[in-house]
Amino acid sequence: MSLLLNGLAASNGIAIAPAYLLVGSDLSVQKQHTNDKDHEVTRLHDSFAFSRQELRRIRDQAHERLGQRAATVVDTQLAMLGDPALFAMMRQKIMQSGVTAEWAVKRTADHYLTIFEKQNDNDYLQARGTAMRDVTKRLLSHLLAVELPDPQKLDHRAIIVAQNITPTDTAQFDRRYVAGLVTDTGGRTSHFTIMSRTLSLPVVVGTKTATAEIKNGDLLIVDGIHGKVLVRPTEDEVERYRLLAGKFAREQEAWGAVRNQQTISADGRHFEVAANVGTLADLEDARKNGAEGIGLLRTEFLYMNQSRLPSEEEQFRAYKQFVAGMNEKQVVARTLDVGGDKRLGMVPLPAEANPYLGFRAIRVGLARPEILRPQLRALLRASVYGRLAIMFPMVATLEEFHRARAILEEERTRLSTAGVPLAQDIELGMMLEIPAVAMMADVFAPEVDFFSIGSNDLVQYLFAADRGNPQVAYLYQELHPAVLRTVKRVIDAAHAEGKWVGMCGEMAGNPLAAPLLMGMGLDEFSMSSNRILQIRSLIKKLNTRQLQPLVHRALNARSATEVTDLVRSAVQDLAD
Amino acid sequence: MSLLLNGLAASNGIAIAPAYLLVGSDLSVQKQHTNDKDHEVTRLHDSFAFSRQELRRIRDQAHERLGQRAATVVDTQLAMLGDPALFAMMRQKIMQSGVTAEWAVKRTADHYLTIFEKQNDNDYLQARGTAMRDVTKRLLSHLLAVELPDPQKLDHRAIIVAQNITPTDTAQFDRRYVAGLVTDTGGRTSHFTIMSRTLSLPVVVGTKTATAEIKNGDLLIVDGIHGKVLVRPTEDEVERYRLLAGKFAREQEAWGAVRNQQTISADGRHFEVAANVGTLADLEDARKNGAEGIGLLRTEFLYMNQSRLPSEEEQFRAYKQFVAGMNEKQVVARTLDVGGDKRLGMVPLPAEANPYLGFRAIRVGLARPEILRPQLRALLRASVYGRLAIMFPMVATLEEFHRARAILEEERTRLSTAGVPLAQDIELGMMLEIPAVAMMADVFAPEVDFFSIGSNDLVQYLFAADRGNPQVAYLYQELHPAVLRTVKRVIDAAHAEGKWVGMCGEMAGNPLAAPLLMGMGLDEFSMSSNRILQIRSLIKKLNTRQLQPLVHRALNARSATEVTDLVRSAVQDLAD
Repeated sequence: MSLLLNGLAASNGIAIAPAYLLVGSDLSVQKQHTNDKDHEVTRLHDSFAFSRQELRRIRDQAHERLGQRAATVVDTQLAMLGDPALFAMMRQKIMQSGVTAEWAVKRTADHYLTIFEKQNDNDYLQARGTAMRDVTKRLLSHLLAVELPDPQKLDHRAIIVAQNITPTDTAQFDRRYVAGLVTDTGGRTSHFTIMSRTLSLPVVVGTKTATAEIKNGDLLIVDGIHGKVLVRPTEDEVERYRLLAGKFAREQEAWGAVRNQQTISADGRHFEVAANVGTLADLEDARKNGAEGIGLLRTEFLYMNQSRLPSEEEQFRAYKQFVAGMNEKQVVARTLDVGGDKRLGMVPLPAEANPYLGFRAIRVGLARPEILRPQLRALLRASVYGRLAIMFPMVATLEEFHRARAILEEERTRLSTAGVPLAQDIELGMMLEIPAVAMMADVFAPEVDFFSIGSNDLVQYLFAADRGNPQVAYLYQELHPAVLRTVKRVIDAAHAEGKWVGMCGEMAGNPLAAPLLMGMGLDEFSMSSNRILQIRSLIKKLNTRQLQPLVHRALNARSATEVTDLVRSAVQDLAD
Repeated sequence: MSLLLNGLAASNGIAIAPAYLLVGSDLSVQKQHTNDKDHEVTRLHDSFAFSRQELRRIRDQAHERLGQRAATVVDTQLAMLGDPALFAMMRQKIMQSGVTAEWAVKRTADHYLTIFEKQNDNDYLQARGTAMRDVTKRLLSHLLAVELPDPQKLDHRAIIVAQNITPTDTAQFDRRYVAGLVTDTGGRTSHFTIMSRTLSLPVVVGTKTATAEIKNGDLLIVDGIHGKVLVRPTEDEVERYRLLAGKFAREQEAWGAVRNQQTISADGRHFEVAANVGTLADLEDARKNGAEGIGLLRTEFLYMNQSRLPSEEEQFRAYKQFVAGMNEKQVVARTLDVGGDKRLGMVPLPAEANPYLGFRAIRVGLARPEILRPQLRALLRASVYGRLAIMFPMVATLEEFHRARAILEEERTRLSTAGVPLAQDIELGMMLEIPAVAMMADVFAPEVDFFSIGSNDLVQYLFAADRGNPQVAYLYQELHPAVLRTVKRVIDAAHAEGKWVGMCGEMAGNPLAAPLLMGMGLDEFSMSSNRILQIRSLIKKLNTRQLQPLVHRALNARSATEVTDLVRSAVQDLAD
């Protein structure tokens, strides 16, 4: 009998391959004194130098293989090593207490880690904690002459099994050899879990015991569709999963067939299936998956891990690449969405008791127009290279929308007067993610060109539940009739004014939600590129008119479970 | 010319009296070594003993004059002084480093304060920080033989002017002599501001410069209605404010005249004006102000500053006092509303990134039935002493309501079977404070006996804005049409099923909201007792039928400002 481990399905697909364990090295250190302080300082200095050298190599590889976001993680560590204060503190510990470099590194790091890890509600300090942990390991590995587990050593196709995959690990894998990933830790919202969705690999996280139960070389089946890992499977099991993997591959192929098609429902209605993107690598993915547009361009990437605000010129060049890269397909750019769980070094924000209910997105933009204005100018200038639309995030009141629009108009006039060429038909819309705005959708609709429903935040606010909080995550119910009623209210109000409505939260890529959203008349579905083909295939099979009874029943259901059952029984394909 | 200071009106009324400055003593300490460590330890020990003695006296006075809540603040400090670890750390500092007791106190306190004050999103640690600061001052005052500013020295009628009024200060005032209060610091949500609402004194907080601009004995006019302080006013100004104060007094008198009347509108509709209470002192206030019921009994008081959960028996005795104390008037008890910004020592909660969107209220009750069950039993047993209703806080889904109701029914059956007498007509309802529930009010209405709209939280969630956060407090708009539409939706859904709707947030006591809420048919207005008579007077003057055009226009307005203007121009009395 094989051993079955359950976890969280973090990325799709099925893999059958031997395990490759990536477990931590022994880096334990005891307090020891030295008679030669200068020697210890030299050793410390060398360990910094070697670590920086290694990290630069890893960073370049990561950049090449995985793009800027992965490289950024390593940059954080490089910045930490480059901070003279860190070296100075460790040096001082050696000089004052006469301890070894190892002990100075460990004690200094522990001191910081205690502070960072107490801040378990501050993502910025948490990230610094993670970086400090990785940096310390690297420094100690040099001082102790112990090798760190090296993902780069993998030279055959295998499934990586680890307690936890750090961003640095991900940056080092040779993707040709990685058949799948299994981890002990990781919840639905951990950094790695979220990142793994873009990996196109079978990934199961949060198995708790994988590294304890699995030995190097054990045959594994990783079912990234259902979140299961079979350890040392029987031949029958291997056979059964080969069939499942085949079915999955055929499905993928069927989805691939719709790549270059428009998304037309069985009764001839056109829906736009677009992509959410945040980097040029995402843009490439969007094109590969046949996105009919960009429904959400996250502009935060330009601001991440920078010490200063990006200039208008830098922004212009970046936006131009996206707008031009989609040819005449629409690109909806969202202005800077900082705050909440997204903190940027160069936009210092106050510590907040409830950042999700705090100073974020357009609230920051309106309070700090010196950030918003250059971004709007850069977007306006990029508009002539394709079909651009602009939207403001987290608008809560009509006054806020008016103020943001006035700033846009001022910048437009300024550029026009200066003779800068601008597109004449830039659509202006807003994210709809705040319940009060849904209640007022009829008042907003005449003023906007479109709404883009941010379902992730909207659902959180509707239920007053942070989905990243494991104790209340059960209340994050995107199929709940309360959500459907809210979405319907918005779509109806917009259509009454002849405006279109998109959705760019995860709900848009949820096959159980798609029939309902189609039936309610959502115009644009924007999602991670890896979901586009599945949703397009599904929409093509469905008939919006025939979906009306389902929509009616779902709006009158009493719970998300009822809605799920209704959709499953109405749409054969979704039966699980 | 007099000097005008603007601040925040924290409590009603007008006072004209000389200033009495309460400013900090010089407690600065330099590092100094000692040759007689034992002597320093003895001095430290004495300062602990004297401080405890003083605090016990302050605590008893506070309890007598201001009730348990004020005494609790002092208890926190007493507990801190009684913690042997604090003394031990300070003692160790003396013995190891040979410093004076003063320096040992200061360094140890600074060490803790740094940690506490970093946690500026954790109310529990913040409160400990405040207590530590007060305790340190008291210890140092004994060691340095410097007197602390002593509110008890006040022996003539005066207006207290201070940088900040600590809870310990409030506990020490002789209320006979305090004509009013003015502070430099304090925002809309600071502890003192909230507490001052119950003081029935003119209070203006957040003037920034009062202690700098005002000298001891300066004549002051404190206008606690508009948040103004006139320093060294002219005779004309004094005359004008005497008239204003007279008008205010007559208003109070007119309000007093309706104390024992029912709340019947000009067209003969009965509304219930009830009180929000959390202590027996509040209950007394409610009766004095002629509350027609208790619309919200906060049960948290039983759990505050306790090291263990209150027993069923303790709870029973307390609830019985409230239920019996209101005779046959209804008392709506809310089950424990822990979490969010309310943390209790004996119910450890996880640190959360967004506590307002986290594990709180009924979410905790359902996860920890060992807390909910004894509370429900105690409430059921108290039901025979008057007219009790029970409601669950923060219900988000019908499943949650069903689960909570099932627990109640189990306990009811258990008690009945055991022969315990129980009232037969206990109404069961829920707080309505989550937007998703408002969207589903028609589905909930057949299942409940009543809704009580918690407008404070509801408004926060509708706008995704924490009203305690100064940078987004502008989005807390209880008169916004989005709020009115949501409230109307709830009232209509409840009335369609023959159920009643109350409101127990601050909006219920807002004279600008009352005409709209009346017009929409809200059945019960529950508020701080000090607002009851004003709201009752207002309701008695208004005609619900004549309010309908106002309601219609307000629901179709585009902003809170528009609504405010509409109400002001429709209801003469509210013109400012």
